Amino acid sequence: MKVALAQLNYIIGDFDGNAAKMIETIERAKTEGADLVVFSELSVTGYYPHDLLEKKEFIRKAEETVKRIAEACCGIAAIVGAPRINENDRGKTLFNSAFFLADGGVRSVHNKTLLPTYDIFDEYRHFEPNRDFNVVEYQNERIAITICEDLWDEQPTANEFGKNKLYQVSPMEELAKLNPDFVVNISASPFSYNQENWRKDVLVNKAKKFSLPIFYVNQTGAQTELIFDGGSVFIDKSGEIVKELNYFEEDYLIVDTANPGARKLQPETNHIEKIHDALVLGIRDYFLKMGFRQATLGLSGGIDSAVTLVLAERALGAENVRVLLLPSKYSSDHSVEDARQLAENLEIRYDVVNIQKAVDAFENELAPQFKGTASGIAEENIQARARGIYLMAISNKFGHILLNTTNKSECAVGYGTLYGDMNGGLAVLGDVYKTDVFAMARFMNKEREIIPENTIVKPPSAELRPDQKDTDSLPEYAVLDEILFSFIEQNLSPAEIVNKGFDPEMVKKVIRMVNTNEYKRFQAAPILRVSSKAFGFGRKMPLVARY
Amino acid sequence: MKVALAQLNYIIGDFDGNAAKMIETIERAKTEGADLVVFSELSVTGYYPHDLLEKKEFIRKAEETVKRIAEACCGIAAIVGAPRINENDRGKTLFNSAFFLADGGVRSVHNKTLLPTYDIFDEYRHFEPNRDFNVVEYQNERIAITICEDLWDEQPTANEFGKNKLYQVSPMEELAKLNPDFVVNISASPFSYNQENWRKDVLVNKAKKFSLPIFYVNQTGAQTELIFDGGSVFIDKSGEIVKELNYFEEDYLIVDTANPGARKLQPETNHIEKIHDALVLGIRDYFLKMGFRQATLGLSGGIDSAVTLVLAERALGAENVRVLLLPSKYSSDHSVEDARQLAENLEIRYDVVNIQKAVDAFENELAPQFKGTASGIAEENIQARARGIYLMAISNKFGHILLNTTNKSECAVGYGTLYGDMNGGLAVLGDVYKTDVFAMARFMNKEREIIPENTIVKPPSAELRPDQKDTDSLPEYAVLDEILFSFIEQNLSPAEIVNKGFDPEMVKKVIRMVNTNEYKRFQAAPILRVSSKAFGFGRKMPLVARY
Repeated sequence: MKVALAQLNYIIGDFDGNAAKMIETIERAKTEGADLVVFSELSVTGYYPHDLLEKKEFIRKAEETVKRIAEACCGIAAIVGAPRINENDRGKTLFNSAFFLADGGVRSVHNKTLLPTYDIFDEYRHFEPNRDFNVVEYQNERIAITICEDLWDEQPTANEFGKNKLYQVSPMEELAKLNPDFVVNISASPFSYNQENWRKDVLVNKAKKFSLPIFYVNQTGAQTELIFDGGSVFIDKSGEIVKELNYFEEDYLIVDTANPGARKLQPETNHIEKIHDALVLGIRDYFLKMGFRQATLGLSGGIDSAVTLVLAERALGAENVRVLLLPSKYSSDHSVEDARQLAENLEIRYDVVNIQKAVDAFENELAPQFKGTASGIAEENIQARARGIYLMAISNKFGHILLNTTNKSECAVGYGTLYGDMNGGLAVLGDVYKTDVFAMARFMNKEREIIPENTIVKPPSAELRPDQKDTDSLPEYAVLDEILFSFIEQNLSPAEIVNKGFDPEMVKKVIRMVNTNEYKRFQAAPILRVSSKAFGFGRKMPLVARY
Repeated sequence: MKVALAQLNYIIGDFDGNAAKMIETIERAKTEGADLVVFSELSVTGYYPHDLLEKKEFIRKAEETVKRIAEACCGIAAIVGAPRINENDRGKTLFNSAFFLADGGVRSVHNKTLLPTYDIFDEYRHFEPNRDFNVVEYQNERIAITICEDLWDEQPTANEFGKNKLYQVSPMEELAKLNPDFVVNISASPFSYNQENWRKDVLVNKAKKFSLPIFYVNQTGAQTELIFDGGSVFIDKSGEIVKELNYFEEDYLIVDTANPGARKLQPETNHIEKIHDALVLGIRDYFLKMGFRQATLGLSGGIDSAVTLVLAERALGAENVRVLLLPSKYSSDHSVEDARQLAENLEIRYDVVNIQKAVDAFENELAPQFKGTASGIAEENIQARARGIYLMAISNKFGHILLNTTNKSECAVGYGTLYGDMNGGLAVLGDVYKTDVFAMARFMNKEREIIPENTIVKPPSAELRPDQKDTDSLPEYAVLDEILFSFIEQNLSPAEIVNKGFDPEMVKKVIRMVNTNEYKRFQAAPILRVSSKAFGFGRKMPLVARY
């Protein structure tokens, strides 16, 4: 059987657009002699529609769209993903389903059994699990259809509790009893750099264990925070990955099960390169799907805004990015010069706007209230917030989206000003630790010096008071980032982190900073997720807690 | 049997504090001759700990605390709520449990069966459902212990799909087979004004249906957005509410099952009064649990900031609230005068800070960039953001929390400036429609004119340009609020709302405004929830969607 893997980028709720894309692919596959086209999980609605799934009209439109796509399936079959009403339960619950379409209609429906409800996944909120297992017979082949997590019953996790609870069954064990010829897995699996190899390992292990070929089709494209990386594969029954589709872009491939041909894998890349590609896609899709073209950001001469700008330029094009240089009296000359140089290297339009007059206006007006107090955080924040006003003014006036440049290390410890440098429609580096931001700058400069060397080598500073350095209030980033990774990604306790060899007082201080800054992150911009545990809706901590 | 209902206010993760409070209550009850003290759901940890439940150390501390409380249970029994590791499942999953404590130890454990995972509830993320049912025998009484939603299998909901899925069982049907003498329900049920009577109805129906007395113990106190209203009850087997504890505060009562005595119910109040009491508690607890005492806010002379100020004064005391009057050239004289009058009526410290110089500094500096453009949203937002800077400066300098004054109608349609008037640590009125804000002002003025009459009767205006009125860009609030309620609380489709008799174009416009402003609400302050569907984590909509 000739199976087409259709790795596409969907827009949530855009039934017409998604259907048009899928029908076009079905027609192409038919012309090219394919027997079956496989799309990804919830391809009809885009993954993940969240509480749009609570709307009757949304579900009805999804049903209609499945039928419309089915009409294109004559002389070819397709597997598409969509929600479906469970008619056995008074029509009051939903399944997350795969529809097998053939002969112009829906031939059979297969529901997801293992519903992820952890980290960024929320499927028990909307779906109920499958309890029936069956295979599709088509052109003398028996096809076992699974949906994403259905194959994922061996996932490692830093969460001590709660993985794949409720399940008394392994979907593959059940399906294997029905003697399938091969397995299809339709998926919506977001990228995270520290789980990158694990996904392929699980699939390979499953193919080996059941001695069955697997067609794995993932979606690509970003949905606000989540970046789906594609990387769909065909694995033969010996567990060898025979075909691997592109990462971070749409792709399409027909595989003949009888004669899959030579191995074709994607080139190996390191984790910095992967994060880079993920973020470029994340920016591009956010703008595209929000209906915007242009970005603005504040260029400080520091490393975070420099790396953000390079990513934005690669995602949107230099002509669609406009930056402000916003020096104050504490900005060093070299900062302004470094920022200017970077903008010129990328041929990006920049304006220099001095914030000092606005800052002085605030401080003068507040002089009676502030009389007798020492200059401190309040004054530093006025500077950061004045910059925020300038950037939002440009954004509002010209219809740009402001990109936020905060990195994960700062975001973790609250080293940033709410309504100031925390402003933005999208936080590009909010899931990238500072040490990785440095590595990415080096990676960007590999062929030529785009980011001025001085931006990379100088000690990081917020430049909100004379001679300020980040290390005045934070540990060195190499140390800070290891403690943060242990606490956030690995979910280790303070005692376990100290056991890794860190100073107990420093560990305590860092964790306290993380915990007491939940209130700032609550109001942060959406963060492009590249790790296994990003700040945002995948990590919900109480704001008022004593722990 | 003499049963003490212990309706307390807990702090999430404060094991020592919560345990001390519970042990003190156990000792008091013992002195007063009670046989059993009933605390609320997850009382040991506070409801709801969210992803703290993913930390092994957190669960271990909860276990230790349960044992510590058990040691106080000699000559008296207690029922407390805490998470518990499911040792049958490789210790990898958790139950949400009720512990029956007696004779200095844990006598039995009873797990929650119906785990809410909708709206603000997220229990499948952390827990697995109970599958075993048993009753406790104590002093010749057979007690059926249930946890919150276990009795809630008849809940009405505006969500078409997803309520109480997964369940093949009704916990009360199972427990009734074991011939209990009475039912205990330990609960953590947050207040919402449009579900207020339904909760009691469900309990009454259950008592009647099974002909069993019910002791229902709810927690009180606010946990950031969620306000738990208490209102614990004892219902006899005929379904009569015999005792009803206070609302919105801690309370405690011993009921003798053999002789419960005369009926004692709480006075009836209307929904505005209830929202008022909820918000006062919400503000008070947020400050208390965050470790802050003082609030600031911007007083515009309009109704939203006026009502917020009265609530803050009642929650924190006049001496702990400080306001800024922040007029610009577009502020009318009467607005400043109304604001001043209100502050004086409440004896609140106020300062007048003119924002015009700062606004001029921004506009002058941006003149080259803005040249040739018409004044519009960008300029209006500069004013709102300059006010935001002044308020945050006072907040940062003096350690106040800035209270946000946005109402639900504005929040819904995005009528507010991000990083401007959307600033704040807590959004007091973010779940109160404008029409209810007016009603609350009238309610506050019932005994004397606190809020100047002019603030109530003048047409609402943001005063960001000459002669601006809210109705320039929005329908009348009476109409707007009905459309919003239909769309948000009732989850109706556009066609269904039009069928209520609204203009189709207006419905379309309003819904479009709601949908396109998800990005603003994403960064909004936490909103005190008083309705069945508040903006925030109980209503998760995709930011990039075409629907």
